[in-house]
Amino acid sequence: MDLNIIKQLSQQSNSKILLCVLDGLGGLPALKGRTELEDASTPNLDNLARNSDLGLSVPVEHGITPGSGPGHLALFGYDPLLYQIGRGALEATGIEFELQDNDLAARGNFCTVDDDGNIIDRRAGRIPTETCSVLTKKIESAINIEGYKVFIKPVKEHRFVLVIRGDSLSDQISESDPQMTGVPPKVVLPLIDDAVNTAELVNSVIMQALAVINNEGQANSLTLRGWSFKPTMPHFADTWGIRAAAIAAYPMYRGLASIVGMDVLNTGLTIDDEIETLEKNWQDYDFFFLHYKKTDTYGEDGNFSAKKSAIEYYDKLVPKLTALKPDVLIFTGDHSSPAVMAGHSWHPVPLMLSSPYIRKNNHSGFSEKDCSKGNIGTIYAKNLMTLSFAHAGRLKKYGA
Amino acid sequence: MDLNIIKQLSQQSNSKILLCVLDGLGGLPALKGRTELEDASTPNLDNLARNSDLGLSVPVEHGITPGSGPGHLALFGYDPLLYQIGRGALEATGIEFELQDNDLAARGNFCTVDDDGNIIDRRAGRIPTETCSVLTKKIESAINIEGYKVFIKPVKEHRFVLVIRGDSLSDQISESDPQMTGVPPKVVLPLIDDAVNTAELVNSVIMQALAVINNEGQANSLTLRGWSFKPTMPHFADTWGIRAAAIAAYPMYRGLASIVGMDVLNTGLTIDDEIETLEKNWQDYDFFFLHYKKTDTYGEDGNFSAKKSAIEYYDKLVPKLTALKPDVLIFTGDHSSPAVMAGHSWHPVPLMLSSPYIRKNNHSGFSEKDCSKGNIGTIYAKNLMTLSFAHAGRLKKYGA
Repeated sequence: MDLNIIKQLSQQSNSKILLCVLDGLGGLPALKGRTELEDASTPNLDNLARNSDLGLSVPVEHGITPGSGPGHLALFGYDPLLYQIGRGALEATGIEFELQDNDLAARGNFCTVDDDGNIIDRRAGRIPTETCSVLTKKIESAINIEGYKVFIKPVKEHRFVLVIRGDSLSDQISESDPQMTGVPPKVVLPLIDDAVNTAELVNSVIMQALAVINNEGQANSLTLRGWSFKPTMPHFADTWGIRAAAIAAYPMYRGLASIVGMDVLNTGLTIDDEIETLEKNWQDYDFFFLHYKKTDTYGEDGNFSAKKSAIEYYDKLVPKLTALKPDVLIFTGDHSSPAVMAGHSWHPVPLMLSSPYIRKNNHSGFSEKDCSKGNIGTIYAKNLMTLSFAHAGRLKKYGA
Repeated sequence: MDLNIIKQLSQQSNSKILLCVLDGLGGLPALKGRTELEDASTPNLDNLARNSDLGLSVPVEHGITPGSGPGHLALFGYDPLLYQIGRGALEATGIEFELQDNDLAARGNFCTVDDDGNIIDRRAGRIPTETCSVLTKKIESAINIEGYKVFIKPVKEHRFVLVIRGDSLSDQISESDPQMTGVPPKVVLPLIDDAVNTAELVNSVIMQALAVINNEGQANSLTLRGWSFKPTMPHFADTWGIRAAAIAAYPMYRGLASIVGMDVLNTGLTIDDEIETLEKNWQDYDFFFLHYKKTDTYGEDGNFSAKKSAIEYYDKLVPKLTALKPDVLIFTGDHSSPAVMAGHSWHPVPLMLSSPYIRKNNHSGFSEKDCSKGNIGTIYAKNLMTLSFAHAGRLKKYGA
């Protein structure tokens, strides 16, 4: 749906929408033939499901496994094949680095190379974040490129962000990260003629950085990838005519919400902290995006029972969410992360939508199987926002 | 899905995909309220369905009845509204005529006209293919058009292919086939200004051909339709990064597979022959398209019980397919051909997908009814390939 049409259709209301994203929620059957969600004891979600509409959400396209960026952009109503956020820009925004227009950002990894310069550990033994802070600070103050300002900022453990500020930069350069061990980091090459200067500049940055760290034990080299500028996309809160808040503990999701145009609220690290933040700010916003990370973390770890427990833990908190009496309450994920696959997958994601305007069905609870027979059917994630805003009475009739 | 994105996401794997197309598989209920597939005894397919994901496949768009071209292109991952193959080009490729760029091809029919020149039999009594060969050879050697080479090649019975080779040809000319009896074949007219010369040239070809055959008993006239050039589309095997083979007895399906870029294997005329070919070549390819024609033939004949028997015959062969242990095994059709309609129809087509990464459901077997409640939901046929390649572990994650 064209977001300009949405802007014309949006209308004011006192209704509140609560979008609860259980990251990587969807699963696959394990030994007992039940998925993580099906095997988990979730009396609160099940009870809600019996009075809700259910469906399945396809994040990008059938068979396409999304990264977190496309997965969330789609939930926020953006066509993930039309709007893309580069990894560098995403990481920069995630640490609340204010990217300016034309700043070129990359995601960096400290790594360990052997005496021949070949990578033996792509994550430098996951050095402590404090070490990363010290090293990035040292590198940043050592780098000197005439006419350009170079920022090196720590993220977590071995991860950092590189941002180059100056004229005529291009994101059309190759990545230095070979994504494998046993080979050296690659020289950065221009992918188009106009990127020759940028590639040379980046290779100088790398040389100067290596001079600072090449005597370190573990973090004696680095790789760069995901060259990107600050993305531009229609502003979420403006498009839908709402005050929108994001509550997420993890930097990347905070970054995503910030890029699209939500207020990112200060919150603690746990889902309990996040819900407390939600309660405190309930009066001040019309739309909340509430992010829960653990379902994905354990899914990616291949830990079925931990993912199941994470769902059960969440279920116990559901009454706190319903107690706020949102007009539209949604539970879904940005993608599936089946423990049996130990990673993101393409499988459609369970979706529950509760509002006064649902049709209901004979659902037994909230599960992949129930969702596959739900009223909503199988929809593209990018269509969830129009559906939610319709249920919230926030969209006018289209056409005469 | 943009096939350029697919190309970027495709990754290597040892997995094998077997796409089994039962042409015209989908049906409609007859007397007993059951479709051909539902009425057929299919213990092997039913058993497989209980451990597979099911769904329905919409070949082009809801309500659109596809020809065999769009039906198969969609199954191969091409948007059938974006990529089209003209009938002439399809027939030419089907008889393994090597179309050159800018060759103009048409499908021809010999027909019978009365003394007034009106068509009384659009198929010239289905003359034997041998007669067709003799006539086309005679016509081809008689035709003489300055600066152009004209090929007339027999297909089967009354069908032939006309190919004109030379400069500045246009496919924007009308068809001579009135698609009805009681009227004469039509004069070919230009549809755009630039096609005036081509239309004149084609009418000369027709005049010269008629001079050769107008004393024949049955095949005393001809009609032409489906003017088209050699189609250009992304190469299937390159796009998906695989070695792809097509096993099909009928020329048109061999032609289709060849046009998109599959190796077309030599095979016999029956499904038993085809499966023998599959077994022999199993080690040499990653992807197989296996075509079964009889379900469509009997559907088009309006013969419910023969179509049902054709499905039952196929079901007995299914263990030979599963014995090959494909990583991803798909059964579907390119369109529906309900016997009660005696022709192609727009109805969504039953779809079964078997892989280690399915969710399963409580399916009772392989039927239109089970498929309408399946996990996959109702999808567009053009999305089947991404889904299949995801299940085969051959697609990387999209986006950061």
